[in-house]
Amino acid sequence: MKNVIVTDPPRTAVADLDLLAEFGVATVHEAFGRTGLVGASLRPLQEGARIAGSAVTVLCWPGDNLMIHAAIEQCRDGDILIVTTTSPSLDGSFGELFATQLQRRGVRGLVTTGGVRDAVDLRSMGFHVWSAAVNAQGTVKATPGAVNVPVIVGGVTVNPGDAVIADDDGVMVVPRLEVARALEASQARTDKEAAARAAYLEGVVSMDQNKLRGVLADLGVTYEPYTEA
Amino acid sequence: MKNVIVTDPPRTAVADLDLLAEFGVATVHEAFGRTGLVGASLRPLQEGARIAGSAVTVLCWPGDNLMIHAAIEQCRDGDILIVTTTSPSLDGSFGELFATQLQRRGVRGLVTTGGVRDAVDLRSMGFHVWSAAVNAQGTVKATPGAVNVPVIVGGVTVNPGDAVIADDDGVMVVPRLEVARALEASQARTDKEAAARAAYLEGVVSMDQNKLRGVLADLGVTYEPYTEA
Amino acid sequence: MKNVIVTDPPRTAVADLDLLAEFGVATVHEAFGRTGLVGASLRPLQEGARIAGSAVTVLCWPGDNLMIHAAIEQCRDGDILIVTTTSPSLDGSFGELFATQLQRRGVRGLVTTGGVRDAVDLRSMGFHVWSAAVNAQGTVKATPGAVNVPVIVGGVTVNPGDAVIADDDGVMVVPRLEVARALEASQARTDKEAAARAAYLEGVVSMDQNKLRGVLADLGVTYEPYTEA
Amino acid sequence: MKNVIVTDPPRTAVADLDLLAEFGVATVHEAFGRTGLVGASLRPLQEGARIAGSAVTVLCWPGDNLMIHAAIEQCRDGDILIVTTTSPSLDGSFGELFATQLQRRGVRGLVTTGGVRDAVDLRSMGFHVWSAAVNAQGTVKATPGAVNVPVIVGGVTVNPGDAVIADDDGVMVVPRLEVARALEASQARTDKEAAARAAYLEGVVSMDQNKLRGVLADLGVTYEPYTEA
Amino acid sequence: MKNVIVTDPPRTAVADLDLLAEFGVATVHEAFGRTGLVGASLRPLQEGARIAGSAVTVLCWPGDNLMIHAAIEQCRDGDILIVTTTSPSLDGSFGELFATQLQRRGVRGLVTTGGVRDAVDLRSMGFHVWSAAVNAQGTVKATPGAVNVPVIVGGVTVNPGDAVIADDDGVMVVPRLEVARALEASQARTDKEAAARAAYLEGVVSMDQNKLRGVLADLGVTYEPYTEA
Amino acid sequence: MKNVIVTDPPRTAVADLDLLAEFGVATVHEAFGRTGLVGASLRPLQEGARIAGSAVTVLCWPGDNLMIHAAIEQCRDGDILIVTTTSPSLDGSFGELFATQLQRRGVRGLVTTGGVRDAVDLRSMGFHVWSAAVNAQGTVKATPGAVNVPVIVGGVTVNPGDAVIADDDGVMVVPRLEVARALEASQARTDKEAAARAAYLEGVVSMDQNKLRGVLADLGVTYEPYTEA
Repeated sequence: MKNVIVTDPPRTAVADLDLLAEFGVATVHEAFGRTGLVGASLRPLQEGARIAGSAVTVLCWPGDNLMIHAAIEQCRDGDILIVTTTSPSLDGSFGELFATQLQRRGVRGLVTTGGVRDAVDLRSMGFHVWSAAVNAQGTVKATPGAVNVPVIVGGVTVNPGDAVIADDDGVMVVPRLEVARALEASQARTDKEAAARAAYLEGVVSMDQNKLRGVLADLGVTYEPYTEA
Repeated sequence: MKNVIVTDPPRTAVADLDLLAEFGVATVHEAFGRTGLVGASLRPLQEGARIAGSAVTVLCWPGDNLMIHAAIEQCRDGDILIVTTTSPSLDGSFGELFATQLQRRGVRGLVTTGGVRDAVDLRSMGFHVWSAAVNAQGTVKATPGAVNVPVIVGGVTVNPGDAVIADDDGVMVVPRLEVARALEASQARTDKEAAARAAYLEGVVSMDQNKLRGVLADLGVTYEPYTEA
Repeated sequence: MKNVIVTDPPRTAVADLDLLAEFGVATVHEAFGRTGLVGASLRPLQEGARIAGSAVTVLCWPGDNLMIHAAIEQCRDGDILIVTTTSPSLDGSFGELFATQLQRRGVRGLVTTGGVRDAVDLRSMGFHVWSAAVNAQGTVKATPGAVNVPVIVGGVTVNPGDAVIADDDGVMVVPRLEVARALEASQARTDKEAAARAAYLEGVVSMDQNKLRGVLADLGVTYEPYTEA
Repeated sequence: MKNVIVTDPPRTAVADLDLLAEFGVATVHEAFGRTGLVGASLRPLQEGARIAGSAVTVLCWPGDNLMIHAAIEQCRDGDILIVTTTSPSLDGSFGELFATQLQRRGVRGLVTTGGVRDAVDLRSMGFHVWSAAVNAQGTVKATPGAVNVPVIVGGVTVNPGDAVIADDDGVMVVPRLEVARALEASQARTDKEAAARAAYLEGVVSMDQNKLRGVLADLGVTYEPYTEA
Repeated sequence: MKNVIVTDPPRTAVADLDLLAEFGVATVHEAFGRTGLVGASLRPLQEGARIAGSAVTVLCWPGDNLMIHAAIEQCRDGDILIVTTTSPSLDGSFGELFATQLQRRGVRGLVTTGGVRDAVDLRSMGFHVWSAAVNAQGTVKATPGAVNVPVIVGGVTVNPGDAVIADDDGVMVVPRLEVARALEASQARTDKEAAARAAYLEGVVSMDQNKLRGVLADLGVTYEPYTEA
Repeated sequence: MKNVIVTDPPRTAVADLDLLAEFGVATVHEAFGRTGLVGASLRPLQEGARIAGSAVTVLCWPGDNLMIHAAIEQCRDGDILIVTTTSPSLDGSFGELFATQLQRRGVRGLVTTGGVRDAVDLRSMGFHVWSAAVNAQGTVKATPGAVNVPVIVGGVTVNPGDAVIADDDGVMVVPRLEVARALEASQARTDKEAAARAAYLEGVVSMDQNKLRGVLADLGVTYEPYTEA
């Protein structure tokens, strides 16, 4: 690992971030070919939030949050902070004093494979968090790391400037240069789902809407009336 | 595994389901001899819901939700959908478009050993869910399975038509033919608990209410005043 | 393990407990030298509660809650019940009938390495709980244990009468004889944090507030402008 | 749960058990339609053992091994002991003194969802064990349970007298009345695998042996030469 | 946490350690009243080792092994090194170069809640290890900790100089001043087990040896002949 | 995910692979700047194996091994097969018939985030495996995936042709174009460790060898003689 702070990476446009947030994780992930989803172990601190931001990435040593301090002044309006550690750690490396600084700079939220503390304050400030734990255990500032280098979070690569979407369904990453394609595909999927929803509300079932009766038959699935054992 | 969709299993009567829901999981489980409780790994998506339904069971391949599509038209008013996979999988095989179809048919909720997505929509629709995960990861429709066969969910066998109760305390199963006994025992327990509660509110302790002083003495438990170490 | 119920341990003063609760877990833990934090596996049943109590400790056999019954009459106003088992168990050994008794005696809440049930009732009563699980599985009253002996909970020793603080950030223990020191250190930390917060709201970053630029340089962290890969 | 010891269940024939053991878990499971496999959390205490036995089932309370004592005299030559608890417990409820009794009666091994102790002795005696843990923590004899009732182990129902096969690949259950079918299918699979193996040793690949090239093409999988990124 | 290296704690006598090792963990734990057992998550790196040593304790920051370096010269013949971290970490903070130094000083082994590396070398050197993981991930030397202070390992307190026993069944701690009592109780238990073993080899069952028939009857356990379902 | 089989990626030279294997995972990881280590959840099926191979990567759907069939003919002498799934799955997607084909082609082993079966056969063939589970549960061949695309395994990116080293300490990846640097750094580290080992065998401690006494002092670590509590 190179100990470096990379400055001024390109960003995803704020207008695109807003559109991605509106679609939400489940729709974009499905539309975008099912890549980029962070594993299900990161959970929202709050209920009902839905955001998208341009990634500022932070790689810390376990038990150490020095590089989060270093990352703050690299952040600007529309960003989302992405924090991970070189080996697994659930320590509470992030709390309200960080959120205060980030919120002032227009940062939209935090995604961390570690823990956060000051949960009550973070919720009441409206600073949105997805984390692997809530944990009061604090950290030191003794070992170097990196800011704005590519990191792997929950099995997914995040490059600085990538679009990160987060809501109650999880967290996902859209590479910066593929955002336009993701938006287009998401709109197409939303339209298709609206049509399906309308049909379902009138009583159509997805077996017909999706033409699955033939699939079942081809796979040898049969129907049998219930008989008492 | 036989690839079959069993049609028209018998159901638990809706009136009985309503009574079971009123008692709730903790009371029925305790009264019914402490059998049928699904392990603590399935958690409610929402807070405060308490339902009971007649089980329609679905057995899927991991990463595949074809049989959920097939199960929908087997469902009717008062049912609850029970989904599991042939090997562990937390993929989000269920979302709002399924819930829309089920809600229209009067289905009361979903219990799944897998994941669900569209959490915000499911909550706002009032479609109740108990699952092992919230996960945007989608599934394919490529491999057969079964509907309305006996399945094992969290260490408990569920037969189609069994009563399934779910609330914040967990999920439990009452075999269809034992519902009457469960209801009777639950009423008796509720009465007994009311008497105990009244006593406790007046200052009686459960050591006396349950006649445990002799038990402690018989087991050799002694009382000692505190002494500084 | 000696099967004993220790009576009348000394308590932490209620006024001190109230002050500790006001500071909260994250602040006291940080101020107190980062000792005494119970591991992150115990989670609150409710959102936003913040309490402190004087510990009444209970050591049970797995699957058995006899000693919780025995502990109740050892409790008084300002206490908090701390329950653990001799080997790991997530059974629901605690529910609303216990809470009714404890609430009447002025007990402030429960911390348990096991499970609780009657979650809806506990929330509506305002009886606060931190536990490792919600689980309807009940327990027996057949095997002895101990009350008010030292126990280890989440990697931390709790002695009877110790101050236990619990909120959304977790649970921590302050030894009874060190409460005064913890309060003093917490006030100092709160003052220091207020100053930092005020600076951050005016745009100062913690890198400057904490004088970290030199630390980064000493550790060999360099700045590089972003270059496209 | 009914507190009962069921005596003299029917057994799977010893000759059939010996044949099942020879095929092993992976072959029988695959041949038998992929049902009956106990989840991957139970692991062998020793390397290279491969046994099959007729199930004597035991259901214990967590932290309690009373019913294992009760089960021993229900065992006979060719049996395998299957132990589980009413809620999860990894306590070491089984050790060398039990194995001594069982080995004298011709019992072939133990499968338990709990823990075992005396690992060195069990290995040196040649008593074979599949368990969820090795754990010196002992148990009491205070709470009733059942012997030779149906139990669910790792997501699979075991009835007394069912054939249980165990080796390094895991543990599986063949219902007693389906053993003949399982043996026939296993022989057929073994023959087919021998033919495939012979082909592979001559350089044939399974893509051709299993006629998968068309499957890949139908699913839209394409071939592309590597190009440097 | 106080950053201190405590020198020259008292030791458990080597002769007593040798006797404890001969009895082994399962016997001493059972005889000693079932206290002091480290939870089942620490596993041996090798098969069949059985040692006891006088504890030298080390408390490290996660991702940091500075204090292991500091601990080495505090070790002498008959010691065992006990390493834990202030918050959970599975990093490989210990390897062959540490073992080389310790082995030269007569240290008998290592117990760590973290990870070790150089597994092949450690096994071939005959340096015995119980750890939570094998992990090549290395650590830094940047943050202070403590040596020979009381630590909590797997739910058990270890004081410097306590006797620690480790074998395939796990790890346990006997407080230094209670070693004589533990030895006496272990001898008594060994004698009792020898008598039971002799009886079992002649066909007696533990139900009779332990007089459990009455217990079962008192608890309402009944016998029923098997009937086909 | 694009459904593609990439043919003829460049390889790491076999001579370099052999040198990397000789150094082993712990040494190369440490020397290479502590990047590329696969998380500790993948464990060896056998004890004492140490290999390195050129990666052929496979991305499968959970519960499906179609793409492993497709990958085999892409393999050649000196390769190592790297298998992962689009969402977590421990199914036993790999067994002896695959190993037979791979061994004939000179493939050195398998690294998989899923499960393997036929453990006894794999060990006796000398085909080396690192996996997340041993599991007899089989898979289907119904859903497409990819071969020789970049995959993320245990938090690390593997590109086709990268060098993968595996031994008892874990699994690590060296990017193909950085192999020369890794070899050079590993030799330097080996030399340095040999010097340290020689010093330690003569009684030097690493506190002096690594000049850590000053570090401890600077961090405020003090020495205190033991005093009885």
